[in-house]
Amino acid sequence: MVESWTAIISKEIEDVEKTIIDTLHSDNEELDEMCRYVIEAGGKRVRPIICILSHLACGGTNIDRAISVGSAFEIVHTASLVHDDINDNGEVRRGRKTLHITHTLSKAIIAGDFMLVRGYRALGDVGEDVMNIIVKAASMMSESEFMQKDFEHDLLVTEDDYYKIINGKTAMLIYASAMSGAYLATSDAELLEIIGDYSHNVGLAFQVVDDVLDVIGKDVTGKRVGTDLMEGKPTLPIIYAMQDPTYGSEIKTLYEKDSISDEDVIKALELIKKTNSIDRCMEKATQLVVEAKKSLTNLPDSEYKDALCGLADYIVRRNR
Amino acid sequence: MVESWTAIISKEIEDVEKTIIDTLHSDNEELDEMCRYVIEAGGKRVRPIICILSHLACGGTNIDRAISVGSAFEIVHTASLVHDDINDNGEVRRGRKTLHITHTLSKAIIAGDFMLVRGYRALGDVGEDVMNIIVKAASMMSESEFMQKDFEHDLLVTEDDYYKIINGKTAMLIYASAMSGAYLATSDAELLEIIGDYSHNVGLAFQVVDDVLDVIGKDVTGKRVGTDLMEGKPTLPIIYAMQDPTYGSEIKTLYEKDSISDEDVIKALELIKKTNSIDRCMEKATQLVVEAKKSLTNLPDSEYKDALCGLADYIVRRNR
Repeated sequence: MVESWTAIISKEIEDVEKTIIDTLHSDNEELDEMCRYVIEAGGKRVRPIICILSHLACGGTNIDRAISVGSAFEIVHTASLVHDDINDNGEVRRGRKTLHITHTLSKAIIAGDFMLVRGYRALGDVGEDVMNIIVKAASMMSESEFMQKDFEHDLLVTEDDYYKIINGKTAMLIYASAMSGAYLATSDAELLEIIGDYSHNVGLAFQVVDDVLDVIGKDVTGKRVGTDLMEGKPTLPIIYAMQDPTYGSEIKTLYEKDSISDEDVIKALELIKKTNSIDRCMEKATQLVVEAKKSLTNLPDSEYKDALCGLADYIVRRNR
Repeated sequence: MVESWTAIISKEIEDVEKTIIDTLHSDNEELDEMCRYVIEAGGKRVRPIICILSHLACGGTNIDRAISVGSAFEIVHTASLVHDDINDNGEVRRGRKTLHITHTLSKAIIAGDFMLVRGYRALGDVGEDVMNIIVKAASMMSESEFMQKDFEHDLLVTEDDYYKIINGKTAMLIYASAMSGAYLATSDAELLEIIGDYSHNVGLAFQVVDDVLDVIGKDVTGKRVGTDLMEGKPTLPIIYAMQDPTYGSEIKTLYEKDSISDEDVIKALELIKKTNSIDRCMEKATQLVVEAKKSLTNLPDSEYKDALCGLADYIVRRNR
């Protein structure tokens, strides 16, 4: 991620890339190549960045551990993407064909497991408190995937259901990354609470914007737009759009369909854009980012604190 | 597993069952129910048993930790079975329909991930030495799955290739279970080497017999026979059968087929049984079990040592 606010940790971000590749090395050439293929496709590296910045902003000096723990979170996250793409029939991710398309379903499942295990291992000895957060986050990822599956094509999904889903699916792992970085720096309860509130809101905002990009994104996301609609996923843009007095009922009909054609997806995307759904979503995301930054008020001033603000602003500004 | 030699740890085996269910508890009812469904289908619990017996035979008194670590290995193993069944299109396991048949492919992938993560977490703090063994075992599981996939339907597979595959696929995790139990009891290098040699040979023998049961097994395995043939898996019974001067070439033709009919599977099974392949495999397994028991010579005598011998004998005697 080349953004001005990341400049102060550019060396650390480079180290993260190296650490990830090293951690995933396998003597099996194909497995090694598959891991590299997914990792080298890039990604925003939000989890290692928030881990490292939280560590430094809390006065931490154990930067090597923050890098290895942050890298481990990125690996766990990437493993979950490999399996998510299978579950969602995703064929393109970060501009590249997904692993189960390039290397068969079986090998993608195995590679995902391999990454998951290596990732958890790379977390190392983070202490009981952090490990409990991580395990809770990991469990919630699975549980919220179930909840999301159960709400597919379901008109009864509410905004509250959506927040529950994205909390487990995305926010908890981002929160865990930040908290791990902070715990490696301090045991000060106030500092830990600050980082906790900040990262939780950043995590929620991140997923709201991700869901918006599935509607208004361009090719720059390296991912087809409309995939959430294709899968009948209960996202905030869809939930808000279905509330629209003019276009809502037509969008509901399309969302309910178990199998939706490419033409219908295009039509649904156009209808959603005619509603105020995207504006409402971005307002919500902005509000979460404002909350996140407000949480930082009592954090001692530093260039790392500024970078955490930069990260929060980036979440709503990004186009991929 | 109700076998006379398990009587001395029957209370511990009960505790293992409880620990596994507790470890896999989820607030998501369906996920919780899926985990119970797989676990309650049973299984031989070889990994916790070998962990606990190795611990006690090395003079260990930390039985609670041995139970929790042994349970964790069973969970990791069960998670791998859930994903294996997807990869092999297995529809029945331990007499029950497999998870991806009862609960969709997506939910089975997610449930497998959930079990994997909870299992690794439940290992807890086993120390650096043991963790290295475990991580190596886990990596080798993925790597050998790749190797096995690459040799499917391949006539060039050798007996050596087969041992490499089953070493990673099965023996390493059984070895890791035993070594973890032993490390929790002692740091005596000689004792650790004894348990290492013993468990490695037991692990290899276990998989050879598993592959034999895929040819000669009855309904008692709760699994269809001939599934390895169906998948073109390079197993020892098939490798030996292909070497037969009379039936070898016909078996090769069937093994090479990418898609094989039920009739062809039945035919291939009959042909394999006409060769000396099963006898050779059982001779090999028996030889490994003899080696395993010989490794125990210098282990101090105890009822737990006797039980380890009982476990080794059971491996070749079992019919499921």
